[in-house]
Amino acid sequence: MSPHEPVYLDYNATTPVLPEVVDAMLPYLREHFGNPSSGHVFGQRAHQGVERAREQVARLLGATPGEIIFTSGATEASNYAIRGVAEATPERTHVVTSVIEHPATLAPCAWLEQRGYRVTRLGVDESGRVRPEEAAAALAEDTVLLTLMHANNETGVIQPVAEVARHAKARGILVHTDAAQSLGKVRVNVDSLGVDLLTVAGHKLYAPKGVGALYVRRGTRIAPFARGAGHEHGRRPGTENVASLVGLGVACELASRDLEAFEARMNGMREQFWGMLREGIPGLALNGHPTERLPNTLSVRFPGVSGTALLSAAPEVAASTGSACHDGLESASAVILAMGVPVEDALGTVRLTLGRTTTREDLERAAQALIKAWSSLRT
Amino acid sequence: MSPHEPVYLDYNATTPVLPEVVDAMLPYLREHFGNPSSGHVFGQRAHQGVERAREQVARLLGATPGEIIFTSGATEASNYAIRGVAEATPERTHVVTSVIEHPATLAPCAWLEQRGYRVTRLGVDESGRVRPEEAAAALAEDTVLLTLMHANNETGVIQPVAEVARHAKARGILVHTDAAQSLGKVRVNVDSLGVDLLTVAGHKLYAPKGVGALYVRRGTRIAPFARGAGHEHGRRPGTENVASLVGLGVACELASRDLEAFEARMNGMREQFWGMLREGIPGLALNGHPTERLPNTLSVRFPGVSGTALLSAAPEVAASTGSACHDGLESASAVILAMGVPVEDALGTVRLTLGRTTTREDLERAAQALIKAWSSLRT
Repeated sequence: MSPHEPVYLDYNATTPVLPEVVDAMLPYLREHFGNPSSGHVFGQRAHQGVERAREQVARLLGATPGEIIFTSGATEASNYAIRGVAEATPERTHVVTSVIEHPATLAPCAWLEQRGYRVTRLGVDESGRVRPEEAAAALAEDTVLLTLMHANNETGVIQPVAEVARHAKARGILVHTDAAQSLGKVRVNVDSLGVDLLTVAGHKLYAPKGVGALYVRRGTRIAPFARGAGHEHGRRPGTENVASLVGLGVACELASRDLEAFEARMNGMREQFWGMLREGIPGLALNGHPTERLPNTLSVRFPGVSGTALLSAAPEVAASTGSACHDGLESASAVILAMGVPVEDALGTVRLTLGRTTTREDLERAAQALIKAWSSLRT
Repeated sequence: MSPHEPVYLDYNATTPVLPEVVDAMLPYLREHFGNPSSGHVFGQRAHQGVERAREQVARLLGATPGEIIFTSGATEASNYAIRGVAEATPERTHVVTSVIEHPATLAPCAWLEQRGYRVTRLGVDESGRVRPEEAAAALAEDTVLLTLMHANNETGVIQPVAEVARHAKARGILVHTDAAQSLGKVRVNVDSLGVDLLTVAGHKLYAPKGVGALYVRRGTRIAPFARGAGHEHGRRPGTENVASLVGLGVACELASRDLEAFEARMNGMREQFWGMLREGIPGLALNGHPTERLPNTLSVRFPGVSGTALLSAAPEVAASTGSACHDGLESASAVILAMGVPVEDALGTVRLTLGRTTTREDLERAAQALIKAWSSLRT
């Protein structure tokens, strides 16, 4: 980052598009502009770009290309998963989810509830994790879907999806996970997780905004979300977002190439950053599980100040008090409150998230600015 | 077009992205990568880009920015319009549409029908136009929506939307039009048309694929399509497709700049092309109304051959037998059959559509190739 710009520590809100991704997209915005549904050579080239992207996304997830349905992003993918499964199996009218899900999961569940579904929302322990035995106990004869996010967007806490999925599978219940935040940061494998449906967001892993995917395990009963022409084998109508899908594919390939090294690097930088901050701010507290979390995410509570005030006093840092989707609200985060943090402490939360372009100098500059801002607010 | 490439005459399937549009997008793929929901400067810049685009789209339609909801394309926009209006007014369960609509309209209507709605599908006269008096007669006490496309994607025939809308408005019935094909080719004004909802497709007017909009007249009762966070004032959740929306905005501004001149130029070139083809192919017939149609669209029936065979025999031309969304099917187009054309004639249909980058040389090359292919198939 340029020294004249604030330090960007909001990679969980969105990531820059990697230069290699932009470069891969450009030919599909320029010469290969065809409609993938067209039979002629312009169409064929676009179609090939989309299908290569499908293979790249599938590979990162340990899935097959036929199990990838491209969407306009994570919100559409999660809406599709939840409403599509419910519509395909209308005789079952119970859904299990958690209180810490993204609105893209919570809102479709609430929509089903308004239509007469029962929705069980699991709480979390003080580390921010759903208790697997509680999830198991919530499953019922009429449960159509269990939807539990892979990693929380605010705290980065990784949920026990595999363990919970085992309980659900034993009872023949479909499992969806929103992996928008985890994909590209930690290894995500649909078989290890044991999920039937998984949400992918392009712009959280260095691909452009407005593109994503839903993984649907072969044989899963699901109705389409939108209706129209026969794209995506009749599962998602609308002309494909060719250039952005090509970008998503390349981003997935780049992510898979150095995933473990990237994870280790993020972990190391975040721990350094945490050390710098703790040194200058006595009483600084960590939100969520100390190890079961994303390597790039640091959700902390600054003592005695509000996160909003702190970020206003530290314009050198571009970060967030919660998820970007909630910005503008001054209330405490439901995710933090769900862990049992008192409201007055929860209001001191700032989410600092690192990414591929974060440097050691960025972190030093950001730590200095945050410590200075905190000190000035305290006096 | 390069002489080594086929002549692209499939602009109704999709358009190239204009260089000015790509140039406008690039900064939003590179430095202005923020999430528009973020409060910091990275977010603000992205937000400004989205809002400028909203003004540009609104201006082309004669609407206000607050009436524009961005979507992932025309299919989402039409699904949103039809299902959103139905969901918001559940006590009315009748929808009027036409048999020549795009699948993005027909399929959501069929979905409602499966859920107990009555759907009236208006036929067309031999020129491919809905009869306004038939539309008026179809309206009932429980009609919740009339949805009639502005211009047909296959024939280019412009529908009497304004006249039909007057009948609907007189009875307090909402009107939606799919303007995916007409916007950027002829003047489209939401007040002249008298519509409450209008579908916009980016990739039909030289913006990228995967982006579009739904115009919703202020005060219209409509439920959201997807559910999630509070984007687009709670009307369309999901992080905005910033770069592509910026592209859509610029494409709309470019379209409005020279719309009448472009229309006249397309009209002139298409008539020249029609003249060249008719000279070489006795019995060549025009599908649809001779004047009430898009200036760039030429849907013709080649006598005694199938359109598919003709295009196979003329690889120098990239065109389509119907809409791109139907490609791969060998059956006659429902749109052409609806005009009363016999099946054996309908199968000879080829859709030739011109655009901003079409040259006089392109048309000469294409006409020669088509005439040669037709002659060889006839002997």
